[in-house]
Amino acid sequence: MTFGEKLLNAASTRGRLCVGIDPHESLLTSWGLPVNVDGLAEFSRACVEAFADTVALVKPQVAFYERFGSAGFAILEETIQTLRERGCLVVSDAKRGDIGSTMAGYASAWLDPASPLSSDAVTVSPYLGFHSLDPVFELAEQHGRGVFVLAATSNPEARELQDQQNADGVSISQQIVDQAAALNAPYMAQGKAGNIGVVIGATLSKPPRLSTLGGAILMPGVGAQGGTASDVDEIAGDMAHLAFPNVSRSILATGPDIAEMKNSVAKTAADFPGFPRS
Amino acid sequence: MTFGEKLLNAASTRGRLCVGIDPHESLLTSWGLPVNVDGLAEFSRACVEAFADTVALVKPQVAFYERFGSAGFAILEETIQTLRERGCLVVSDAKRGDIGSTMAGYASAWLDPASPLSSDAVTVSPYLGFHSLDPVFELAEQHGRGVFVLAATSNPEARELQDQQNADGVSISQQIVDQAAALNAPYMAQGKAGNIGVVIGATLSKPPRLSTLGGAILMPGVGAQGGTASDVDEIAGDMAHLAFPNVSRSILATGPDIAEMKNSVAKTAADFPGFPRS
Repeated sequence: MTFGEKLLNAASTRGRLCVGIDPHESLLTSWGLPVNVDGLAEFSRACVEAFADTVALVKPQVAFYERFGSAGFAILEETIQTLRERGCLVVSDAKRGDIGSTMAGYASAWLDPASPLSSDAVTVSPYLGFHSLDPVFELAEQHGRGVFVLAATSNPEARELQDQQNADGVSISQQIVDQAAALNAPYMAQGKAGNIGVVIGATLSKPPRLSTLGGAILMPGVGAQGGTASDVDEIAGDMAHLAFPNVSRSILATGPDIAEMKNSVAKTAADFPGFPRS
Repeated sequence: MTFGEKLLNAASTRGRLCVGIDPHESLLTSWGLPVNVDGLAEFSRACVEAFADTVALVKPQVAFYERFGSAGFAILEETIQTLRERGCLVVSDAKRGDIGSTMAGYASAWLDPASPLSSDAVTVSPYLGFHSLDPVFELAEQHGRGVFVLAATSNPEARELQDQQNADGVSISQQIVDQAAALNAPYMAQGKAGNIGVVIGATLSKPPRLSTLGGAILMPGVGAQGGTASDVDEIAGDMAHLAFPNVSRSILATGPDIAEMKNSVAKTAADFPGFPRS
C-alpha cells in the first residue's frame, strides 16, 4: 500500500492532522525540563503518550535532536520506533537533499525498514534539482513509504527563490509540484494516492496549483501562524482530502500534561475531519 | 579570526585541497571492511591517520554516518573531534536548511563549540531562501566558523533550478553568490576573507561570477569527475586563492593503506598550491 493510502486510512478515524514534536529550548524550559538530553527524552516520551493513539501523522523535528549529537539521535530513534509500534504514522522532518550515493545514504537512513531511524516518511529539499532526489523516491516506492518535497514554504525569505518563474511563467514551487504529480500519476489513474507529497505553506497568497498532485500535502502555518481550516481547503482544492495541516505550537503549549495535549489534539483534529474509507 | 583566514593559513603550508571522507557501501567493501558501524569506524580512523596532518580541509559526508543512526553519529563525533585536535580544519557536509529556531538548532549542532559535532564549517542548502539561513550565518560570525552555501552544483539535475533567471537576468546561483558576498564585504574591505563560502561545481560551463565573493569556494567535480586545476582557476578568477577543490574518489581509492593515501594527497595538493601568508 502506498504512503498516501496509509495516510488516508489513518485520517478516516483520526482526522487530517500532523502534529509536530519540536523540543526547542524555550519549550523545554516552559515545560520545566532541563535543556539537555534528559529533558529531550522526557519531552519526547510525553509527546509519544499524547499523540501515538490520537494523531494520524506525527512529525519529529530532527534538528532539535541533532543538536545533541549521537545522544540526541538515540532518543529520536526510540521516539520514532515507539510512535510507529503504537500505531501512528511518523514523518521525520529532516529536509535532507543531496545527490547520487549520498542521497541514497539519506534515503536509507530515513526510509529503509532496517534503519534505526526508519520512518513512514521524510521531508526533503530540492535545491540540487527535483530529480537529484530520485534515490529517496525509489526507496519510497519500494517500501510504500512517503516523501514530502519542499515546494512553497510559508516563511517570507522563501518567496524570492520559490516564486521565481521560468521562461514559460511557471514558478519554481509549481515546477516541484508538477514533478511530484508526475510520479504519483500512475496511482492517481487508479483512483489512489501515491507516495510523493509536497510541503505548502497554509498562509500563502499565491500557492501553486495542486489539483493534479495525487499525493499528500503537508501544510505548516496553521494555528499560531495564522492559517485556518478554510485556507487549507482553498489552497488544496481538489486535493483537500490529502491536505494535512501541521499544528505544533498551540498543542505543545498545553503540555506537559498529557490529558491536556490529548484534548487539544481532539479539538484541533475536529477542524480537519478525514473521509470514510471503503 | 574568520574561517576564511584560517583556511588561507592552512592552505599556505598544505595546499588548497579539500579531501572528503565518503564511507559509502562500495568503498567499505573495496577496502575489505564490513558494511556496518565497525567498518565505518575503521574507515574513518584510517582517513584521520592519512589526512589530519596533511590536508587543509577535510570533509566528512554526514549521510554515510547518518545511515547508521545514533551509532553512526557517535563515530562521526569522534572523527570530527580527532581531526580538529590533530590540526586540520573540518567542514561537515550536511547540506542542512530550515527556518527560524529549527535552523538555529542545526547551526548549534554543527558550529556551536559545545556541540559534540562541532566543526569548523558546515554546508547548507538555500531552498527556503538565502536569509532563512541567517541563524547559521550569525553563529558562524560569532565563533569564526564557516558556512558553505550550495550555489551552483555540478550534477546535471541541478541546472533546471539553479540556472533559472529572475526578471533582471540574474540566475539563482548568482543570487546566492551575491548574497554571500554581501555578508563577506566588511572583511573584504579590510583585505580579509570572511566566514561565508559557496559550493560551485568545477565542471560548470556557465558558472556564476565569483570576483566579489570574499569567502571560500568549495569545488566538487575535480579529478575523477573531470574538473582540472585550470578549470578551478578559471572559474574562481580573482578568488582563485580561496578556491578549494574537493577531491575524494581518487584519493580514497588508494586506501586503506595510509602511506598510499598520504602520497596521493601530496601529489594532488601539489596541483593546488596555497599562497604564503605574512
